[in-house]
Amino acid sequence: MNFTSDNSDGAAPEIIEAMAAANKGVLGSYGTDPLAARVEERLAEIFETDLRVFLVTTGTAANALALASVSPPWGTVFCHREAHIAEDECGAPEFFGGGLSLRHLPGRHARIDPDALVEAIAECGARGVHQTQPAALSLTNLTERGALYRPDRIAVLTATARTGGCAVHMDGTRFANAVMAGGESPADLSWRAGVDILCLGATKNGALAAEAVIYFDPARQAAAISSFEFRRKRGGHLVSKGRLLSAQMDAWLRDDFWLDRAARSNTMGQRLAAGLREIADVEIENDPAANMIFARLPLAMHRRLRAAGAAYYLEPASQTEDGDGISVGIRLVCAPSTTEEDVDAFLDLCSDLQPAYA
Amino acid sequence: MNFTSDNSDGAAPEIIEAMAAANKGVLGSYGTDPLAARVEERLAEIFETDLRVFLVTTGTAANALALASVSPPWGTVFCHREAHIAEDECGAPEFFGGGLSLRHLPGRHARIDPDALVEAIAECGARGVHQTQPAALSLTNLTERGALYRPDRIAVLTATARTGGCAVHMDGTRFANAVMAGGESPADLSWRAGVDILCLGATKNGALAAEAVIYFDPARQAAAISSFEFRRKRGGHLVSKGRLLSAQMDAWLRDDFWLDRAARSNTMGQRLAAGLREIADVEIENDPAANMIFARLPLAMHRRLRAAGAAYYLEPASQTEDGDGISVGIRLVCAPSTTEEDVDAFLDLCSDLQPAYA
Amino acid sequence: MNFTSDNSDGAAPEIIEAMAAANKGVLGSYGTDPLAARVEERLAEIFETDLRVFLVTTGTAANALALASVSPPWGTVFCHREAHIAEDECGAPEFFGGGLSLRHLPGRHARIDPDALVEAIAECGARGVHQTQPAALSLTNLTERGALYRPDRIAVLTATARTGGCAVHMDGTRFANAVMAGGESPADLSWRAGVDILCLGATKNGALAAEAVIYFDPARQAAAISSFEFRRKRGGHLVSKGRLLSAQMDAWLRDDFWLDRAARSNTMGQRLAAGLREIADVEIENDPAANMIFARLPLAMHRRLRAAGAAYYLEPASQTEDGDGISVGIRLVCAPSTTEEDVDAFLDLCSDLQPAYA
Amino acid sequence: MNFTSDNSDGAAPEIIEAMAAANKGVLGSYGTDPLAARVEERLAEIFETDLRVFLVTTGTAANALALASVSPPWGTVFCHREAHIAEDECGAPEFFGGGLSLRHLPGRHARIDPDALVEAIAECGARGVHQTQPAALSLTNLTERGALYRPDRIAVLTATARTGGCAVHMDGTRFANAVMAGGESPADLSWRAGVDILCLGATKNGALAAEAVIYFDPARQAAAISSFEFRRKRGGHLVSKGRLLSAQMDAWLRDDFWLDRAARSNTMGQRLAAGLREIADVEIENDPAANMIFARLPLAMHRRLRAAGAAYYLEPASQTEDGDGISVGIRLVCAPSTTEEDVDAFLDLCSDLQPAYA
Repeated sequence: MNFTSDNSDGAAPEIIEAMAAANKGVLGSYGTDPLAARVEERLAEIFETDLRVFLVTTGTAANALALASVSPPWGTVFCHREAHIAEDECGAPEFFGGGLSLRHLPGRHARIDPDALVEAIAECGARGVHQTQPAALSLTNLTERGALYRPDRIAVLTATARTGGCAVHMDGTRFANAVMAGGESPADLSWRAGVDILCLGATKNGALAAEAVIYFDPARQAAAISSFEFRRKRGGHLVSKGRLLSAQMDAWLRDDFWLDRAARSNTMGQRLAAGLREIADVEIENDPAANMIFARLPLAMHRRLRAAGAAYYLEPASQTEDGDGISVGIRLVCAPSTTEEDVDAFLDLCSDLQPAYA
Repeated sequence: MNFTSDNSDGAAPEIIEAMAAANKGVLGSYGTDPLAARVEERLAEIFETDLRVFLVTTGTAANALALASVSPPWGTVFCHREAHIAEDECGAPEFFGGGLSLRHLPGRHARIDPDALVEAIAECGARGVHQTQPAALSLTNLTERGALYRPDRIAVLTATARTGGCAVHMDGTRFANAVMAGGESPADLSWRAGVDILCLGATKNGALAAEAVIYFDPARQAAAISSFEFRRKRGGHLVSKGRLLSAQMDAWLRDDFWLDRAARSNTMGQRLAAGLREIADVEIENDPAANMIFARLPLAMHRRLRAAGAAYYLEPASQTEDGDGISVGIRLVCAPSTTEEDVDAFLDLCSDLQPAYA
Repeated sequence: MNFTSDNSDGAAPEIIEAMAAANKGVLGSYGTDPLAARVEERLAEIFETDLRVFLVTTGTAANALALASVSPPWGTVFCHREAHIAEDECGAPEFFGGGLSLRHLPGRHARIDPDALVEAIAECGARGVHQTQPAALSLTNLTERGALYRPDRIAVLTATARTGGCAVHMDGTRFANAVMAGGESPADLSWRAGVDILCLGATKNGALAAEAVIYFDPARQAAAISSFEFRRKRGGHLVSKGRLLSAQMDAWLRDDFWLDRAARSNTMGQRLAAGLREIADVEIENDPAANMIFARLPLAMHRRLRAAGAAYYLEPASQTEDGDGISVGIRLVCAPSTTEEDVDAFLDLCSDLQPAYA
Repeated sequence: MNFTSDNSDGAAPEIIEAMAAANKGVLGSYGTDPLAARVEERLAEIFETDLRVFLVTTGTAANALALASVSPPWGTVFCHREAHIAEDECGAPEFFGGGLSLRHLPGRHARIDPDALVEAIAECGARGVHQTQPAALSLTNLTERGALYRPDRIAVLTATARTGGCAVHMDGTRFANAVMAGGESPADLSWRAGVDILCLGATKNGALAAEAVIYFDPARQAAAISSFEFRRKRGGHLVSKGRLLSAQMDAWLRDDFWLDRAARSNTMGQRLAAGLREIADVEIENDPAANMIFARLPLAMHRRLRAAGAAYYLEPASQTEDGDGISVGIRLVCAPSTTEEDVDAFLDLCSDLQPAYA
């Protein structure tokens, strides 16, 4: 019953096998191996458009390098205040971007509120050199609260961004889950809705350490792409034996492997959400479109779960008290390895609970 | 009737005379002139404590260098969301601080809400290397909304900061106005209330371009002071003919000149506020302790004032509409050169106004 | 006959097997897995001292993060002018170090000339804030020209560094080769000779992508270590599934695997050097202690080698002309996979050559 | 007998008077005052071309901001190894440029050797992302060793720079002295010879603190100019009461004031050089075109001069010993305030000296 994150798992066996297979022989180094070219072709097919791809080992590197490639040091990047780039990357965008600024925006379920974006862009940069200037909009799909941006929602935000002179970045750590949750195509969820750069994460969905930074419409983005390439090297993210990354990504994208895994996680997530909705004392706090559920439980239930070995993270400042006693906010993430048995055992533990408030 | 800012004035004649007087002869360069030493002595007397002082030409340089001297690149600086460092310095703290982060906090009249600070510090850095770490609290006194922090309010915030491992910086662009507004001593408003570094601004109050960065308890702050000195040079802020700055500051601090000027501005500010309170259609929006008033006027009144030559800035997104028609938010700043006649002429213009809403 | 670099090979099969084996089960993420702890223990045994270890994917990241952890932005890092950090990392030290400076020093065979270091340190920082300050000495062992620093040579340089207030970093991309070339212990070649931080490279010697940053005497270096940890995360170099790195390093260090591989490369390198010395028209330009040879060949010989499929890099500005005609400077690197047959075939090709100068 | 530098003097009285005159009344702030516009017009006349001008307080700020505006963080700036940006600005170019690199070049009298530039540009960036890329050439005229670059020498270097994709920056701290030394027009010494950005220094030649950053052909340099403007604000170098700077520069440029002063310094410099050449034990080490002389004196002569109150700087590592005994390398700078009496008194002291070697 591990609902923490896919990070505590290893990689899918298929990925490790692919790495082993790619290990043999002499190949071009620094990203010039034939697998890297094949990854680019595969992604062009999947996204139905011309694109450029760069592979790096971490989502933090992917996001920060991408943002630095489209923002000057005096740029502002607009993001949700719960975004991974705002809360979990120790200031990586500011570091790679030479001291750029993030502007935190509100919005339910970690989806940016469109009005807040309009206002923030209007304020920012209105007084010339005295202020940092609008440079990029960063969206996360799935959001950090497990919600889905459908193409229409994305398009509203990217249109505002475009008008305000901003490039659009998407943190797609769980992009595969978003694709499978909504049934829209990768293209519809990205460049067709106005996304310029997608950081497509494989690490949380089966790879060991592999993230693809995808530039759509590469001819238009030539300057950003060149900037990315120098920053990647200078940031220590150009691995010499590039097959480390390309072999993972190639296998991950093959035969819908990436989507099948996401579908499995989503199915388990939906089963878990449905089960929790049946339980009187549990409140689901997010809008769980895929494999992430944020729920509030009575303290006693939480204790029973933990005692039984259930693993999950608490939300920040998780414990609150109201008329019904103390409750705890928790985050549950289903991975491809999550089984129906895991889910049902978890739900049983919840249901069994006898209310025990003082 | 110029209520924009002291920046559109020149310097006080006394300051220019002092600069001319100091111009003669050979003096040590790069801050080693005898006037610089005298400034340090004078400030030690005024603040009743041992201190180290560095002079720079702009408030932006003073603030950013001071913050960079106490925060690592992965530090968070807590400030009010309307702070000058957040809104008007084009990311200078992020630049000088190697990509540090500002965390914007709420609070009425641009005073930081103490609970918000407690929460923000608790959240920040709770998860180790994944987050930027609490590094500094930055207060502004007078605040950007013309309000006063009295020593007790300061002490509450600095105690929280200290517990959270933060150094305390005060942006004192209008520190002289704060001293005269509250009647507390410079020491009580700074180090005795927990401030480590004060950026004492003379430019808005009579100097041409002179800001003092004051480190209290210099023995304890030796590392920050050394860092400041290298950053100042490297930032191009160590002027060779240091008398440019020391002559201004020396004259400004002499015989309470700085305080007398602030008192004059405050008196005019209070006269203006009192007058505006008498006028039916005007709403004072801030808590004007000194020389700054934020007011909301009917659009017609604003137009009449402008037509008559009154100069002042509009607030961001200044124009709003409600049942009473369109109104305009404006900022009025009194300078030492502001006269009773200016104030009264302005008030007369306001009063004369016939409501003219459609 | 591939004498380019180990980067065009994959990893040793043993490393891939270890990665596969470590892939199973749930482990702590972000470097908290048990393999990481075992790597630290193993290195403590190998180096016969207490130490702290951090694993990253590239040598560029290892070097730049290490240097940034011991140098302020206004620091100078002294290195040989042919050092990898000076010539091949696209300014990574300057980037991670917030704009620090490298000072290029001369010296035969890419070993820093001791007198040049004494002078450079004396000059640097003599005029206080007007200059960047001595911060670190960076040595490479094996040097970029394939030469060995023995402990006595290291000690001379590190003593100068210490006197000048510099930390000592060693780029140990080919440290294993240095150990086997000289027969001195890892401890004698590092901390006992005054090295504070060793970047021990496995990637060029059998791993896929794994470099260990080793801090000796960690209690003394606590501030640098803390700085490293934040910079690593912020630099996108803290991989979530840490076993990727620890499994490689654990296997690489096991049962002298790392040293055996280096010994093999060195043996082939020495065989190649001995053979080349016998050939009249070939001049060996470096002092080949291990597996790297820099040689000068007649142009016709070079063409014949290339035509026969021999692969190797040219030196910068490789082609020169003198009384004997045009010659070409080349770099030959032996890898563990290099065979006696490779070496002998190469030598035969050289010998067969009929002088063909015009 | 002060031959240290113009920095220990105050400003010329004319400059102070101009500052006092400009102090009255309300003027646009942040560089929008009418004097700033007049300075731009005046410079356009003087340089016989369209240009954009920005005023800052220090030469370090001028140089570093200018270079950062034309170099990416992964850029290399080529300069002489004795250049002020290399030796005296504590890494300001690296700081403002986000970690750019300086490449130190040799050349007699601190003039860059043209072949060395050709080679350095060819090496730099030949291997793509692995290296920093050629970005700018920085010349100093007068050089740091008091030599003059005539237009033909400049053109050779700037042609190489242009071919290599570099912008050309000129540090013109003593540009006025260069103009008067060679008799060439300001235009011939700058843009007509291929200079893109000139940092024209007034501080060492009569101003209190004023440097002009001049962009020639501003339409072509629009991106660099925009970058400069944001960096200036963000660097704390946009002074609010802009008249501080524009008044100085306006007066300095008026009626050839700047050139007359330089001519006076040069005349004194040439008188001093001519006198020193007559003295047996003195060796002039530079090629003194204007107001700077580098000379080598017997130790006893140096002691006598110092005892008599002569002030000047020693060269780094100034004292050397040979068959004739110990000698001392010194730098003599004539300022506009230097008198014939000063020079002659100095020469007399030199001549009077009885050889006193052991």
